Amino acid sequence: MTRDLPDHLPGYGPLRPYAEAAACPDLPLIPERGDAGTADKRLPDLASALHAAGLREGMTLSFHHHLRNGDGVLNAALDAVAQAGIGDLTLAPSSIFAAHAPLLDHIARGTVTGLRTAYMAGPVAQAVSRGALARPVVLHTHGGRARDIETGRLRVDVAFIAAAMADRAGNLTGAHGPSAFGPLGYGQVDAARARVTVAVTDCLVNELPCAPDIPAAQVDYIVVLDRIGDAARIVSGTTQITTDPKGLRIAAMAGDLIAASGLMRRGMSFQTGAGGTSLAVAARLGHLMADAGVTAGFASGGITAPIVALHRAGLVDRLWNVQSFDLDAVESFASDPRHCGMSASRYANPARDDAIVNALDVMILGATEVGSDFDVNVTTGSDGTIMGGSGGHADAAAGAKLAIVVTPLATRDWPRLVDQVTCRTTPGAHVDAVVTEAGIAINPRRADLAERARHAGLPVMTLEAMRALCPPPPDVPGPAPDAPVVAVCEYRDGSVIDLVRQQR
Amino acid sequence: MTRDLPDHLPGYGPLRPYAEAAACPDLPLIPERGDAGTADKRLPDLASALHAAGLREGMTLSFHHHLRNGDGVLNAALDAVAQAGIGDLTLAPSSIFAAHAPLLDHIARGTVTGLRTAYMAGPVAQAVSRGALARPVVLHTHGGRARDIETGRLRVDVAFIAAAMADRAGNLTGAHGPSAFGPLGYGQVDAARARVTVAVTDCLVNELPCAPDIPAAQVDYIVVLDRIGDAARIVSGTTQITTDPKGLRIAAMAGDLIAASGLMRRGMSFQTGAGGTSLAVAARLGHLMADAGVTAGFASGGITAPIVALHRAGLVDRLWNVQSFDLDAVESFASDPRHCGMSASRYANPARDDAIVNALDVMILGATEVGSDFDVNVTTGSDGTIMGGSGGHADAAAGAKLAIVVTPLATRDWPRLVDQVTCRTTPGAHVDAVVTEAGIAINPRRADLAERARHAGLPVMTLEAMRALCPPPPDVPGPAPDAPVVAVCEYRDGSVIDLVRQQR
Repeated sequence: MTRDLPDHLPGYGPLRPYAEAAACPDLPLIPERGDAGTADKRLPDLASALHAAGLREGMTLSFHHHLRNGDGVLNAALDAVAQAGIGDLTLAPSSIFAAHAPLLDHIARGTVTGLRTAYMAGPVAQAVSRGALARPVVLHTHGGRARDIETGRLRVDVAFIAAAMADRAGNLTGAHGPSAFGPLGYGQVDAARARVTVAVTDCLVNELPCAPDIPAAQVDYIVVLDRIGDAARIVSGTTQITTDPKGLRIAAMAGDLIAASGLMRRGMSFQTGAGGTSLAVAARLGHLMADAGVTAGFASGGITAPIVALHRAGLVDRLWNVQSFDLDAVESFASDPRHCGMSASRYANPARDDAIVNALDVMILGATEVGSDFDVNVTTGSDGTIMGGSGGHADAAAGAKLAIVVTPLATRDWPRLVDQVTCRTTPGAHVDAVVTEAGIAINPRRADLAERARHAGLPVMTLEAMRALCPPPPDVPGPAPDAPVVAVCEYRDGSVIDLVRQQR
Repeated sequence: MTRDLPDHLPGYGPLRPYAEAAACPDLPLIPERGDAGTADKRLPDLASALHAAGLREGMTLSFHHHLRNGDGVLNAALDAVAQAGIGDLTLAPSSIFAAHAPLLDHIARGTVTGLRTAYMAGPVAQAVSRGALARPVVLHTHGGRARDIETGRLRVDVAFIAAAMADRAGNLTGAHGPSAFGPLGYGQVDAARARVTVAVTDCLVNELPCAPDIPAAQVDYIVVLDRIGDAARIVSGTTQITTDPKGLRIAAMAGDLIAASGLMRRGMSFQTGAGGTSLAVAARLGHLMADAGVTAGFASGGITAPIVALHRAGLVDRLWNVQSFDLDAVESFASDPRHCGMSASRYANPARDDAIVNALDVMILGATEVGSDFDVNVTTGSDGTIMGGSGGHADAAAGAKLAIVVTPLATRDWPRLVDQVTCRTTPGAHVDAVVTEAGIAINPRRADLAERARHAGLPVMTLEAMRALCPPPPDVPGPAPDAPVVAVCEYRDGSVIDLVRQQR
């Protein structure tokens, strides 16, 4: 007996009528959870991966930024999402760079309606500042992001992991391969908690030459692309020691302050950002350590060539690397057993006692603005346009025993020292000193440090006196006080430390 | 500096303002994927589990039916879902029993708007037949369900696994504990592929006394309830050998047919349902085997006391158990190493060559109706009301070398033999013989079997002649031919074999 069946049924969809002796359609298996890592998880393209991942409207996608301005995976994935016609998505990339400008089309089209990140620069940051997104962006810290994901405060539906090398089962590494970028510190957090993890690689091998940064058990699907990006563009902005005399003078004073603080002792630990002046401080510190016969226990954070050089010179025993800022740091991570990777959670998670930032003696911070109460802004320009974000700034400042801001008094016409910062990234309570070409201003909370600095004959002055040396701010109106909120700035504990309003 | 912040921001929600030296809120971690099985995954209640699982509108929840009419987990979970105010959910329980009547309130409230299952009886089945759900229910087979889940055709967002015993890491078993129910054959498929798995148990231990049926790596959260159900109500309907003379006569003929078929040989394999007549066939077969000095290799499917008895008598070497139908089968599974569990996929997945049903020599099937072309209906009553479903009926019929339907000519006024079945569950192509108290009708496709039966002097007759002995159907109008579709009956390969329309 056969039945008359409609071709399509509302609430069910197209009908495939039963046919005697028809072969059972051959559908691919989706991998088992906790897969021991033997199944072949490859899918032919991103579209298949989106389908297999069950991507739907309103979901949250995460990306890591280890390829920085050379990343090609976020753009490729969003193109596939747009093709699939799925919208109203929230993106949670660990950072956004100029290379991600195509994201603006996806925002305009409604494919992407939400954004959570720790750092954003370039066209996307500028457009968001002008109100490109209806929902305010959430700007968190690197450590806050790790905590949010690990506690489900930020739930990632699909994590896209750019992998420099992968095997068929989904063991991933960033250390090797043509697009090697170093550790996978940010991606590790995503893959460990995402509902579905899609690995994207341009180097599929039978066996990894190293232990995986991300284990197969945390990867559901693998898509192989011709290229995941351009590792040559990992270096964005300066990650070299400054040669500017002003910067070198600042670095010399900062180094002397560290020496005077009493923290420059055997086994000390420090972190610098990738800024030229910060790196000059590291170099200066290296000289002081060598003269004093002191070797550091570790240097941490994003790792750069100058830090690798100190390590190779035997002045720093171990490197704790959450991301490589340049190719020297990529190569060193791949080849040096004392150059260790760490997840963003191990690095800076505020809920973790064993976070590396909590073990820091000294942190060298940059600043776009420093307020009269030592608050620091690295989120917006003085005109209120988003041009960065905390990244690990607030995390490391909170953890380190001595947090030193190094900054010139002014850049072009803009004073770096102001009464109130345009946007509050890191609270002054965690900033111990500000060093400019004019001298050293020490946070009144650190009378002990001021005493040591004066005793060492360093040019200590008040922050007010220092600010008096700055040019007046040009008369460029920032956002109206009642303008719509374009970004919510979350401190590392998830509380709201400031708001960014829409540019005129 | 502090900022003026609103209490609440559209697109962001409530704001928690930054406060200096405020402690980082202590949020519970969600477990890592591929968790090695050491983390404590307990949550205080189902509400917390729903929150942690990120349950949202439109998602799909799965349940297993090992506790059958004694299951308390589906009702408890849906109460928590309703409390959370989440709606438009699709349920994918492996079966629905009278105990699940509270589901009707959740359907009425819009909490549940979709249903996919292999078997449904009781108030829910009756209400669905009368149009309680706007979307048609999908009725699949046990094997089809396993395949759908393993291939993502049916994507489970949150799987609820009633576990008779669990450790804190999420290793689960159904074999032990106060509510022990036997193997976890249906739940295993769900836990292995669900986005999130929530285990619900009333017996949390430090260490399982046996290998887990479901490994910790496939479990995200554990909720401990006072009771997961009432194991005494696993026995639903008859799972005892019939004492009705008519049934015993049918069983005797069916046994003789098996003997005549040439399949009753050393190492043979067979499956019976839980029906009294089917079990009488098994008992009869046991006598014939004992007389002939034949021992079976295995018996499979849902396991009952009479099958356990044959195994203990040494007549059946091994039991492959996908679910225990009674407490004898529960106890035997927990204590007998030759009594093995199997997943619903290993049991009946149509995409698997190694499915146990494909190794079956003999399958004894029940029937509500048998059509003139040997089609079988076990999905609806003759009045068109849903009162069952395939379960493993179509799976085992397709896999077995000899599929025998045992049924009386009529029950009360209803003829069991009809021209066209009211609903088509298993195609006649897979039914080799029909045995009633009147004799044996053999499918014309099996001339070989008819020849052997006649040669053995068995009362072979045509199905037409047999049907002529049935009473005429009472004049009870079924659904109108153009009535709305309330259920889509999928064959094991996912094709549509029939539709059930709304009752008048």
